[in-house]
Amino acid sequence: MRDFSNDHSALALNTASLGHNLDGHGAGWPPERVIDACAERGFGSIVFWRREIGARAVEIGERARAAGLAVAGLCRTPYVVGSEATDRQVVIDSAKAAIDMAASLGAAVLTIVVGGVHPGSKGTAESLDIVTDRLGEIVTYAAERGVKLALEPLNPVYAGNRSCLTTVRDALDICDAIGAPNLGIAVDVYHVWWDNDLDTQLKRAGAGRIFGYHLCDWLADTHDVLLDRGMMGDGVADLRAIRKSVEGAGYAGPCEVEIFSAQNWWKRDPGEVLDVMVERFRTLC
Amino acid sequence: MRDFSNDHSALALNTASLGHNLDGHGAGWPPERVIDACAERGFGSIVFWRREIGARAVEIGERARAAGLAVAGLCRTPYVVGSEATDRQVVIDSAKAAIDMAASLGAAVLTIVVGGVHPGSKGTAESLDIVTDRLGEIVTYAAERGVKLALEPLNPVYAGNRSCLTTVRDALDICDAIGAPNLGIAVDVYHVWWDNDLDTQLKRAGAGRIFGYHLCDWLADTHDVLLDRGMMGDGVADLRAIRKSVEGAGYAGPCEVEIFSAQNWWKRDPGEVLDVMVERFRTLC
Repeated sequence: MRDFSNDHSALALNTASLGHNLDGHGAGWPPERVIDACAERGFGSIVFWRREIGARAVEIGERARAAGLAVAGLCRTPYVVGSEATDRQVVIDSAKAAIDMAASLGAAVLTIVVGGVHPGSKGTAESLDIVTDRLGEIVTYAAERGVKLALEPLNPVYAGNRSCLTTVRDALDICDAIGAPNLGIAVDVYHVWWDNDLDTQLKRAGAGRIFGYHLCDWLADTHDVLLDRGMMGDGVADLRAIRKSVEGAGYAGPCEVEIFSAQNWWKRDPGEVLDVMVERFRTLC
Repeated sequence: MRDFSNDHSALALNTASLGHNLDGHGAGWPPERVIDACAERGFGSIVFWRREIGARAVEIGERARAAGLAVAGLCRTPYVVGSEATDRQVVIDSAKAAIDMAASLGAAVLTIVVGGVHPGSKGTAESLDIVTDRLGEIVTYAAERGVKLALEPLNPVYAGNRSCLTTVRDALDICDAIGAPNLGIAVDVYHVWWDNDLDTQLKRAGAGRIFGYHLCDWLADTHDVLLDRGMMGDGVADLRAIRKSVEGAGYAGPCEVEIFSAQNWWKRDPGEVLDVMVERFRTLC
């Protein structure tokens, strides 16, 4: 395992951790100010959300790199399945627009949160088949633009309306079915910390298919499954064991802190939040 | 698969579906009235909670059987791991008291919800080891009293503070480790509906280790992960597919409706709720 105690250049900020900056939560900092705050603190990379980028993808990407930060990723495609994604062509066109934004930004990875159970179906299997069909239509488009697509399984609590994709196992089944070298997975401890099949599945994934590793913590008494994520160390996820599995599978990329926390971290000074991240990352992750 | 369209004798009521009767939710009906209401409607069996039984286990069990209902189960042991279960001997003694109650009631099965992550540990693996150790101390006691113990994996959203046991897979690992014929699993669609490994694991379980099958539905837009369960048909769980897997593995026992629904079903007339259950069971399950 990598030793981060004296080197946190692997640390990445997912801007959601500061309340998304632009949507009324958190500091309301523009991307430039977030970039500078991360660069000052020695973060190695940054991950943005589409809502923060708008038409400024090229400009913001260049600004980040000029400050010494890689753009590790962009969140995320619109849902590709579920009640908000009923029209196949609209889904494909929207995904391609997100791919274009990622390419303009110079983001290495575009994350995919797939969406919930498709209207008219039951269970997750049929919806996952729809995901496979639709992703099969966009992987080449992404590859041609140098964008990797990372399927992110979400905690099963979201399976109904946000992500019928709930496990690394199912994500790899989709990767296997499509077989494109730019299609892989993102592993977020919030979503997978409970899964005792994780190590086996990460070995199956191998380094070539793990495109992202996301950090936060699962609070034992989670009050809100969407917006009550914990800072690393404040919860019950075994962060060291998960990173050991991720790195044991060959992953050596950024560790991206993504904390949705409406009642705690989003209310704090962003500089303080970033300082705590660095400290926790060096000592606990 | 069994055909329930003209025979719902496999239908069991878990009394939680009427608001637990005795705790301020729901109708406040005493066990006797619930028994009669179920018997009148052709339910085949009933499952009680310890709080409803108190010192009247023998009396209530006899009353149910006199009305033509089997007592399919008793909910549940106190947690055996986690912050409310730190003292091993207290846990074992409490579990034995619950076993005694199940035996007095004549309940075929005592359900086990194991509890959350143990204080001082991270992840679920170490806590599951504690579960294995402690259950190993009570299985023989239960067997001597004719009580089966059913490990119930809960949806991973509860892994922090209610059940570090989240999958049938992990439950069977514990069963394998202990190797007692009266230790098996309970399968609740609310907790497992998202799991595409379920059919494989149920085959692994086999008929001899599936001690219960619990019905409700997962609402796509679940508002409260504890108390917003859906009536069968109102959600996105593939109830027919799950039952096919359960019965394919050899299960032929009761189908127990367990719906925690503070804002909907618990507010309705219990007779109406039971009538809807029968209708949905015969047509949709």
